[in-house]
Amino acid sequence: MRGVVMHGPGDVRVEEREDPRIQEPTDAVIKIVAACVCGSDLWPYRGADAPDRQLMGHEYVGVVEETGDEVTTVQPDDFVVGSFVISDNTCPICEAGYQSRCVNGIFVDSQIGTQAEYARIPYADGTLVATPGMPDEDLIPSLLAASDVLGTGWFAADAAEVGPGKTVAVVGDGAVGLMSVLAAKQMGAEKIIAMSRHEPRQQLAREFGATDIVTERGDAGVAKIRELTDGLGAHSVIEAVGTQEAMMQAIHSTRPGGHVGYVGVSHDVELPGGELFFGLVHLHGGPAPVRRFLPELIQLIWDRDINPGKVFDLTLPLDRAAEGYAAMDQREAVKVLLTP
Amino acid sequence: MRGVVMHGPGDVRVEEREDPRIQEPTDAVIKIVAACVCGSDLWPYRGADAPDRQLMGHEYVGVVEETGDEVTTVQPDDFVVGSFVISDNTCPICEAGYQSRCVNGIFVDSQIGTQAEYARIPYADGTLVATPGMPDEDLIPSLLAASDVLGTGWFAADAAEVGPGKTVAVVGDGAVGLMSVLAAKQMGAEKIIAMSRHEPRQQLAREFGATDIVTERGDAGVAKIRELTDGLGAHSVIEAVGTQEAMMQAIHSTRPGGHVGYVGVSHDVELPGGELFFGLVHLHGGPAPVRRFLPELIQLIWDRDINPGKVFDLTLPLDRAAEGYAAMDQREAVKVLLTP
Repeated sequence: MRGVVMHGPGDVRVEEREDPRIQEPTDAVIKIVAACVCGSDLWPYRGADAPDRQLMGHEYVGVVEETGDEVTTVQPDDFVVGSFVISDNTCPICEAGYQSRCVNGIFVDSQIGTQAEYARIPYADGTLVATPGMPDEDLIPSLLAASDVLGTGWFAADAAEVGPGKTVAVVGDGAVGLMSVLAAKQMGAEKIIAMSRHEPRQQLAREFGATDIVTERGDAGVAKIRELTDGLGAHSVIEAVGTQEAMMQAIHSTRPGGHVGYVGVSHDVELPGGELFFGLVHLHGGPAPVRRFLPELIQLIWDRDINPGKVFDLTLPLDRAAEGYAAMDQREAVKVLLTP
Repeated sequence: MRGVVMHGPGDVRVEEREDPRIQEPTDAVIKIVAACVCGSDLWPYRGADAPDRQLMGHEYVGVVEETGDEVTTVQPDDFVVGSFVISDNTCPICEAGYQSRCVNGIFVDSQIGTQAEYARIPYADGTLVATPGMPDEDLIPSLLAASDVLGTGWFAADAAEVGPGKTVAVVGDGAVGLMSVLAAKQMGAEKIIAMSRHEPRQQLAREFGATDIVTERGDAGVAKIRELTDGLGAHSVIEAVGTQEAMMQAIHSTRPGGHVGYVGVSHDVELPGGELFFGLVHLHGGPAPVRRFLPELIQLIWDRDINPGKVFDLTLPLDRAAEGYAAMDQREAVKVLLTP
């Protein structure tokens, strides 16, 4: 089959890879219907993670081809959405809702790589969720979004304890930031402040539910958030970038006792203990346990209550994956969908 | 009146200070019945905060001498307990339970200094809580503990979301660590692991409710906690030291999705973003909003349900405060009570 391999920074190729096969009785093999390029794929693309013939892709929807003997919740021809971390969904960590740190967890990225025609999914029962039926074509981008960016934005909002009557600020206007605006809206936030200086992304943020846009960054951005919150800071702040500046912007924008939900993959971030201590905020985040939210998100999409698929603004065939990476790297596209 | 002044590291003197007077209609002046030396007082004592004629003391119980015209909840001759941060208890931050970051907040330490005969307490209604009557002599140490160490340990346990059925680990065997063991016990924790290598403190920890003692530190301590928790880490971990080693020990001892409650005043702590991200823990802490818990804690003490006063193992007259600092600095005393 064909699949994406990153040979080095900026060097994305589509080449022949081994066909996946059932190896364990808990496996499923799925035919990928749609995959995509993630903001986190840009870290190795830009050289931050020193990729070396790395299999790429961790977001996916597909149709089950074959299942192992012990798989009971999905069967061939089911349309399925999976999370970007393989999970058994039965260990104590999964039971507590932290499937992204399952004791048997495997990161789909690099070990499986779903920017491809097929994928073997271990612990299929614990990882995949079947949709109520074959989805209409127009629902596919939204279901694909649930696999990571929506699930991650949702977790960020959950981690930031977004709720009715609260003011939420979102640092980062990439796909995950935009999805967390949508999540905050669904969770009943009163005021949703999107921090973005890019006109098309501001527009999308407004469509997803942002009530205010702040274009300033760093200390000026923090000052603006305080201005919009009676000098107190937001109740809930979502960090969806992963840099030192974004993280400090998030922490400083949060009122004492408030919550920071952070999902930007941390790169070279060092949090100063003293500032954190006297800030008296809550901090929670990390790789999103998307599997926890998948059943609810699939239902919201199925019922057309939310339309996260709008976040995709470029669709390419798998063979042109390299163009998709370049478009996202140049910020010409928010999110690229790939069809095998 | 007499009061403690720290002239420089290690240089603690009791000298004449100005008599406090009502300045604002929301003030009260109290006669201090008991004060004490806090673990955090040792930071400047050891030179970490470069003290320069600093007024000392932020823990106190006393009897109201005089109140301003607008004070309504306490009156002369009331026995009162106050928190170590002055709070109006009416601002949105106070209303959310974060009185230690009240918009009108004042740290009692250095600005007021309750290691003294008298103290002016601003925002008396928002800061002080009267006991149900004049306490028996033997309750005074416990009520004094509520003012900071108990309130702080309680907050740490609350921040770490301690609850029934949970396993709790406590990093730090100072007074606050020991108080958080007591808090965890009261909150119904199933297993309470105290990390301590000092025999008398281990004994006290067991009296307060510890079920297990771990003497190892750093990575070895973390390994031991994992051994005691099926390899997963504790649900709730309390950090009550404030150093890099203690903080990392706490974070690494927590299971994914678990909670770290930290109350050790951070000194030279830098938290590595990547480890925090992939750890997927909750982090919450800072200066404890003791005022939130005071009514409940006073009642528990009044009803003799808890006996936190056991944490005091040395009582000295105010004039001998310097000896008290030295005893705590040398770890000869866990906690020193001063009587003016």
